Amino acid sequence: VLKLLADRSLDSLSLREIAREAGITPTAFYRHYHDVEELGLALVEESCRSLGRTMQIAGTHLTSSEGAVERSLGVMVGYRDDHMSHLRFIVRERDGGLRRVRRAIAGRLHLMADEVAVGLADGPGRAGWSLQDRRALAGLITETFMRMLADLLVADPDDETDIVERTRRRLRVIGVGGTAPGDAAHSGDGAEPLDGR
Amino acid sequence: VLKLLADRSLDSLSLREIAREAGITPTAFYRHYHDVEELGLALVEESCRSLGRTMQIAGTHLTSSEGAVERSLGVMVGYRDDHMSHLRFIVRERDGGLRRVRRAIAGRLHLMADEVAVGLADGPGRAGWSLQDRRALAGLITETFMRMLADLLVADPDDETDIVERTRRRLRVIGVGGTAPGDAAHSGDGAEPLDGR
Repeated sequence: VLKLLADRSLDSLSLREIAREAGITPTAFYRHYHDVEELGLALVEESCRSLGRTMQIAGTHLTSSEGAVERSLGVMVGYRDDHMSHLRFIVRERDGGLRRVRRAIAGRLHLMADEVAVGLADGPGRAGWSLQDRRALAGLITETFMRMLADLLVADPDDETDIVERTRRRLRVIGVGGTAPGDAAHSGDGAEPLDGR
Repeated sequence: VLKLLADRSLDSLSLREIAREAGITPTAFYRHYHDVEELGLALVEESCRSLGRTMQIAGTHLTSSEGAVERSLGVMVGYRDDHMSHLRFIVRERDGGLRRVRRAIAGRLHLMADEVAVGLADGPGRAGWSLQDRRALAGLITETFMRMLADLLVADPDDETDIVERTRRRLRVIGVGGTAPGDAAHSGDGAEPLDGR
């Protein structure tokens, strides 16, 4: 089914097309799923399982040392390489036409952010942050990774370095991932021109 | 054409369907646009003009006082109300199937972030930030607003308050929009339970 979804959104597919692609009769399909939406929910589970594992690993790496951020970014690029069809499904259907599918993806992304938030409890400069603020920070990190993944999904090979670099810098500005902005000794970009976004 | 695009992505439409909806012959259509992609580029211009104006106003409001952030959020909610079809087009096609359309939207979003970055030059705590870091911050702000708009586009009315509140908190964690996290006297959320994300 994910093969069919490479070019089309879930709500544009009929049950009959899906059954044909899967090589089964519509009747056999109905034995498994009530409708296309229910199939979508099963795909959410499958896709978000792999993404959730990846977010968790990337979140664990996100401590304050620069090498760790590189590992974190590497984990994300690896996810794009290994789970293209899962990623494409999540990126498209999270804003797609099927309400229950959308809500299921949103719910899973919130859970992922919550797991990232747990790891942020004791970060430097975050003493006294409320649970809510840590969650907001974790939400920002999760969305920054999601944006990177969506960009990487359709990127020309030439653009990949820029996309990763942009993400690295955003994480730094959020306050995870090494040297804080303004510390010119380490940021190494004082005089750079209009590139690298 | 934006009416047709309410339910379908641009790359799923044929020139013939579009001409029929517009009440013109395919020949007349060709007089204006070489192909569907070129029509898409014209729609990018139109949609991003309204969004760009909105981002600029919202960015201008984003100073350090809390009331200003409220105005900024209000401007964004207003954009969703007034420009549903533009917004839907941008949200869907920025990750959609037509490469030139995607790149055009990405380019326009970068320009919007650059305009926001200009306004961030003299913010408190941002002395000594490089242009690159200000751009990364502006990119985060732009993406945070885009995420809010995409969520609002499909939200149940009951969820709107949560979406806006989540955005408010994310902006605060990024360092724009009032009291910094950890300042319990103003954050007013020390003991709140698992809601409001």
